[in-house]
Amino acid sequence: MTTFSIAKSRRVRSTPYTSRIEKQGVTAYTVYNHMLLPAAFGSLEDSYHHLKEHVQIWDVAGERQVEITGKDSAKLVQLMTCRDLSKSKDGRCYYCPIIDDQAGLINDPVVLRINQNKWWISIADSDVILFAKGLAIGNKFDVLIKEPNVDIIAVQGPKSFKLMEKIFGVEITKLKFFGFDYFDFKGVKHLIAQSGWSKQGGYEIYVENTKSGLELYDHLFDLGKEFNVKPGCPNLIERIESALLSYGNDMDNNDNPYECGFDKFINLDSDVVFLGKEKLKQIKKDGIKKKLMGVQLDIKSLSLTSSLDIKNDKDEIIGELRSACYSPYFDKVIGIAMMKKPFWDVSLPVKIEVNSNICTGNICDLPFI
Amino acid sequence: MTTFSIAKSRRVRSTPYTSRIEKQGVTAYTVYNHMLLPAAFGSLEDSYHHLKEHVQIWDVAGERQVEITGKDSAKLVQLMTCRDLSKSKDGRCYYCPIIDDQAGLINDPVVLRINQNKWWISIADSDVILFAKGLAIGNKFDVLIKEPNVDIIAVQGPKSFKLMEKIFGVEITKLKFFGFDYFDFKGVKHLIAQSGWSKQGGYEIYVENTKSGLELYDHLFDLGKEFNVKPGCPNLIERIESALLSYGNDMDNNDNPYECGFDKFINLDSDVVFLGKEKLKQIKKDGIKKKLMGVQLDIKSLSLTSSLDIKNDKDEIIGELRSACYSPYFDKVIGIAMMKKPFWDVSLPVKIEVNSNICTGNICDLPFI
Repeated sequence: MTTFSIAKSRRVRSTPYTSRIEKQGVTAYTVYNHMLLPAAFGSLEDSYHHLKEHVQIWDVAGERQVEITGKDSAKLVQLMTCRDLSKSKDGRCYYCPIIDDQAGLINDPVVLRINQNKWWISIADSDVILFAKGLAIGNKFDVLIKEPNVDIIAVQGPKSFKLMEKIFGVEITKLKFFGFDYFDFKGVKHLIAQSGWSKQGGYEIYVENTKSGLELYDHLFDLGKEFNVKPGCPNLIERIESALLSYGNDMDNNDNPYECGFDKFINLDSDVVFLGKEKLKQIKKDGIKKKLMGVQLDIKSLSLTSSLDIKNDKDEIIGELRSACYSPYFDKVIGIAMMKKPFWDVSLPVKIEVNSNICTGNICDLPFI
Repeated sequence: MTTFSIAKSRRVRSTPYTSRIEKQGVTAYTVYNHMLLPAAFGSLEDSYHHLKEHVQIWDVAGERQVEITGKDSAKLVQLMTCRDLSKSKDGRCYYCPIIDDQAGLINDPVVLRINQNKWWISIADSDVILFAKGLAIGNKFDVLIKEPNVDIIAVQGPKSFKLMEKIFGVEITKLKFFGFDYFDFKGVKHLIAQSGWSKQGGYEIYVENTKSGLELYDHLFDLGKEFNVKPGCPNLIERIESALLSYGNDMDNNDNPYECGFDKFINLDSDVVFLGKEKLKQIKKDGIKKKLMGVQLDIKSLSLTSSLDIKNDKDEIIGELRSACYSPYFDKVIGIAMMKKPFWDVSLPVKIEVNSNICTGNICDLPFI
């Protein structure tokens, strides 16, 4: 496949780590929240195997924060998500679908409750800050909304725990999944969560002090040698196998959270107030007409750059393939697809046209592994 | 300079014309409103000269539309911009800074008044649709907000008028600047405006019927041969020389419209209601502390990927260079910079560190030509 270069500019913001990852061999970028996000360090497959066995350091500054502070901050954060946050606790992360009044997905961030009056929304790729500002202004909420100076370094992979322990001490290994706390690095406090955009385990360091963050970045590589540390980035293969959904790829504003399988993050029975609640009740009552499922295809490679129609043996369009990659685990292409009702039978045979060839496969449940 | 490839995906949407421009030799992309925007077809300078003399066809589908319809649509559009739209007319385009309640810029779109109850906001690179949705929900406005299926083809350059006349007849040459109307192409009506992101003149075709748009795209190249038509894209050199500002590059949410020289698009004396009005009155009273100006540098090349500090001869930071390129017209690098008060004297000598070398230059007014 022909490759095209990315034109850099101030509008497509670099991160504090960009010059480092370029020396370390980044080969491709994508753009995420108007920022450069590394997309490959050479072979995707090599990086996949390495991530599953060792430890990688990722420059994921593109995961921007929307900081909401003030008297009405909890009210505004709750208004934006169908997940009940009334019993949320300080020092915890919450995966929260953000929806509009029609229950269309706007983002699927991780919300950090720093305290009752200070929240960070760690966003996927859409300008949630503008939605929050519009809602706050329209509702005359007493809040301050800004994009703070926070650039995340992710430390991912099974050996991330040992590496982080070496730097921050045994305390950090006691963090629960989706818990966060402040940890000291050479006199500077960093907010660190046990989280990250892989299923391999690890941490995300929310760097506010850029100078200390750069020092920490280098230190992670110095101390990581014994764990076979490498630079990396969210891995397409790993995230599809684990069914870590990607906003904009697998779902967008035309999909609702039930269609994306977010049932456990939808709370319709409590009395909390959020947008789209009535609409979601209606959807629950009527049932959904499409949903995200897995697809396995009998081919060895597929570079997806937009949706592909999925057909059945009668040539009816029964779904839309939205993400796909070759999986070394299955030795075939796997993907995530929005399937129409009633074509949800696991093992249903399907076909897709790829580069003028018809390939066959079958529907399956998510996650793959 | 090392180049990096762009990782494509459904999240970074292709346009209906992507396969065509790839056959036609696009070499670089940027991402604009989550969409691929061509950034180069080989040499930027060759393309600049061609644009100034002939005619180019641009795939600028990345200029997405926010469609606002309904009873309160005029009220919502006005709420978002400091420009008085109370005397606006159907069939006209309006360049409108969109600001928040603190007068920080959110976007600088062209607003098309299709009629009093139907507006298109043709946006620069930020999710204005989320701001509009937030405001509409918070204010309980009776509006429908969506991203319609519209992909713009721009026809730019001095010979664009002759080419478009050949296809659409003499009527199209009577369109005034920033006027639009519907024109027939083989039985399909297309909204066409005399506008575009160059100062060379031309048209933007707002394609809703994709099939007809693709046919029209090919037809433009067929009939354009006699005018030396080429594929192109917004040209960095041409846009900087003409001081066509770029949201995200030259200005962002930390800047207000006075600082960007948008004085003529700010109406504080009428009784229209918009966000940030009181704040703008205060800013006008107090005076601004920084503003956008031109910079000329005594060097022959500069690839800017983020801001650079501008210093005076006392080594004080007096401004921030935000966009820059080599200009064949001046035979030196020119750029757009946010300059601190009181360093606004035209001809003020300045210096900038570029790749560990200090280069000198001077401040100047905008536009350059």
